[in-house]
Amino acid sequence: MHRGRLEAFSDGVIAILITIMVLELKVPRRADLAGLLPLYPVFLSYALSFIYLGIYWSNHHHMLQLVDRVNGKILWANLHLLFWLSLVPFVTGWMGENGAAPLPTALYGVVLLLAAIAYTILQTAIIRSQGPDSKLRAAVQGDRKGKLSIVCYAAAVPLALMWLVPDRRIESRY
Amino acid sequence: MHRGRLEAFSDGVIAILITIMVLELKVPRRADLAGLLPLYPVFLSYALSFIYLGIYWSNHHHMLQLVDRVNGKILWANLHLLFWLSLVPFVTGWMGENGAAPLPTALYGVVLLLAAIAYTILQTAIIRSQGPDSKLRAAVQGDRKGKLSIVCYAAAVPLALMWLVPDRRIESRY
Amino acid sequence: MHRGRLEAFSDGVIAILITIMVLELKVPRRADLAGLLPLYPVFLSYALSFIYLGIYWSNHHHMLQLVDRVNGKILWANLHLLFWLSLVPFVTGWMGENGAAPLPTALYGVVLLLAAIAYTILQTAIIRSQGPDSKLRAAVQGDRKGKLSIVCYAAAVPLALMWLVPDRRIESRY
Amino acid sequence: MHRGRLEAFSDGVIAILITIMVLELKVPRRADLAGLLPLYPVFLSYALSFIYLGIYWSNHHHMLQLVDRVNGKILWANLHLLFWLSLVPFVTGWMGENGAAPLPTALYGVVLLLAAIAYTILQTAIIRSQGPDSKLRAAVQGDRKGKLSIVCYAAAVPLALMWLVPDRRIESRY
Repeated sequence: MHRGRLEAFSDGVIAILITIMVLELKVPRRADLAGLLPLYPVFLSYALSFIYLGIYWSNHHHMLQLVDRVNGKILWANLHLLFWLSLVPFVTGWMGENGAAPLPTALYGVVLLLAAIAYTILQTAIIRSQGPDSKLRAAVQGDRKGKLSIVCYAAAVPLALMWLVPDRRIESRY
Repeated sequence: MHRGRLEAFSDGVIAILITIMVLELKVPRRADLAGLLPLYPVFLSYALSFIYLGIYWSNHHHMLQLVDRVNGKILWANLHLLFWLSLVPFVTGWMGENGAAPLPTALYGVVLLLAAIAYTILQTAIIRSQGPDSKLRAAVQGDRKGKLSIVCYAAAVPLALMWLVPDRRIESRY
Repeated sequence: MHRGRLEAFSDGVIAILITIMVLELKVPRRADLAGLLPLYPVFLSYALSFIYLGIYWSNHHHMLQLVDRVNGKILWANLHLLFWLSLVPFVTGWMGENGAAPLPTALYGVVLLLAAIAYTILQTAIIRSQGPDSKLRAAVQGDRKGKLSIVCYAAAVPLALMWLVPDRRIESRY
Repeated sequence: MHRGRLEAFSDGVIAILITIMVLELKVPRRADLAGLLPLYPVFLSYALSFIYLGIYWSNHHHMLQLVDRVNGKILWANLHLLFWLSLVPFVTGWMGENGAAPLPTALYGVVLLLAAIAYTILQTAIIRSQGPDSKLRAAVQGDRKGKLSIVCYAAAVPLALMWLVPDRRIESRY
């Protein structure tokens, strides 16, 4: 089985996710600044998620360059990654419309964390399929810090939020 | 006629269907758990349909590996399959928003059954186009149980529902 | 310039149009037949437009098989065709939600007629680019009746409607 | 890294943007001309944006013909262009629903200007990656006027608006 169709399908899903997110930017009824300005948190969260999905697409692109044949495990590990990425428009919209309130922001972080884990599972499935001479393992070893930093970054989002949530609860007692 | 464009078009449609389903997960107005929790049946039905469409995409992917040339019958049998798959977001949304009530769940099963039948028609059209030395027939014969189980599974959904529906009617008499 | 990207872009647009139409099938609030049945005209108009777009995709697919190189005129003639096809979901929705009332049905016919004209323009642009030994001209000549029937069929829709519209006006006088 | 997947992803995003714009053409409730006619500014702004995105797709198509290998800078310059293009449906909808009022029209111009700048950045990134023998630089030099005119045109839109905005303010004093 060739990797071409896996790439095409993943490209299709990520391209649609990126474009569907923009539907959350609902056209305001008023034609003035007072109609436009309340959209800025939705716009910011859209821009953030656009960059996130761009990073995933770019990394996915690079990783699959090193894959020759796709087996069933890789195919399902890839669908698993796309599942978590497909929830990005929902959490982006919820976070954007609530001005980065704690729970929506935490859920945003959780979805990104699960996507990062799914990405690692996909990477592992590819390395296993390639056996001891895995080209991907060789490439990832040299770049271990880079990959580690992505996982840490994704993990940091919900951690940061756990920090914030109690703070806000304490604040609410005053 | 080459199979490439048929694959690309089918990939496009299935990728869009998978992503359009997530639009049914409407962003709640409240930023707390009370806003999020009522979405869990919609989320579960989304996850179920994502897996279903993933299975179809994966099987479609494998089947077309064995096709060299596409004729008019295969092209229309493929569009027929895509038609029933295109109704999955609608029945997923209806089932999810009604907490798996009998009629929406039955309709969900009916659409999946019709998609399974359309898949079998497509398979038959490919085998006929390949003549007596059909590579697909050889592959399917060895895997007859696997294919049979898919059809049985799809058929079981509405059967199970027919079982449930009278039960509920009996219950409503008490 | 190669034809591959033109095909991929057209496939993408037609795949999205086919799937966007299904969004017009709005999930009913009620979980019973009384919620589902009013959707049947929307469903029928969706099925009709699915077949129409399927025919266009299939014919487009066949026509481009005979194209080797794409020039600017072909590229824009193709975008012109996609423009009219992109209005199919709108007219399908309007016709479906109004139970095939005269004006929505007439507009549906007008859009299909303009798409048929755009298809003929695209065909002419390809034949001209291929010069006197045009493979497409040779193919189309043998199939002149087939092409003529498509144009007649598309033309017949608004003609039939012009017939209907006065009828209804006469009826309204009683 | 090959250019194929960059093209496929860009085609996917632009195809979806073009088709998502048509969702702004909301199906009217009335089945007569009084329901249809108020949609004409939305239709006109849709047609304008369709042509704009068609021009971008066509130019993008031509430019990437001259690219053999894609590096990280080109990949991100391309995502940056797609980001601004992804805002076209939003500004098209805002302009269309407000009958080309000054602020929505100005924002429409701003988004197109930023897209034109992003296109120039992408072009520069490609030329730099190709070194002194850049095929793209050679092609662009011969067509400097064409490229300049695109930039001027895009720049003219907000300039024209700045001209209009004071006019309207003056008018409002009467």
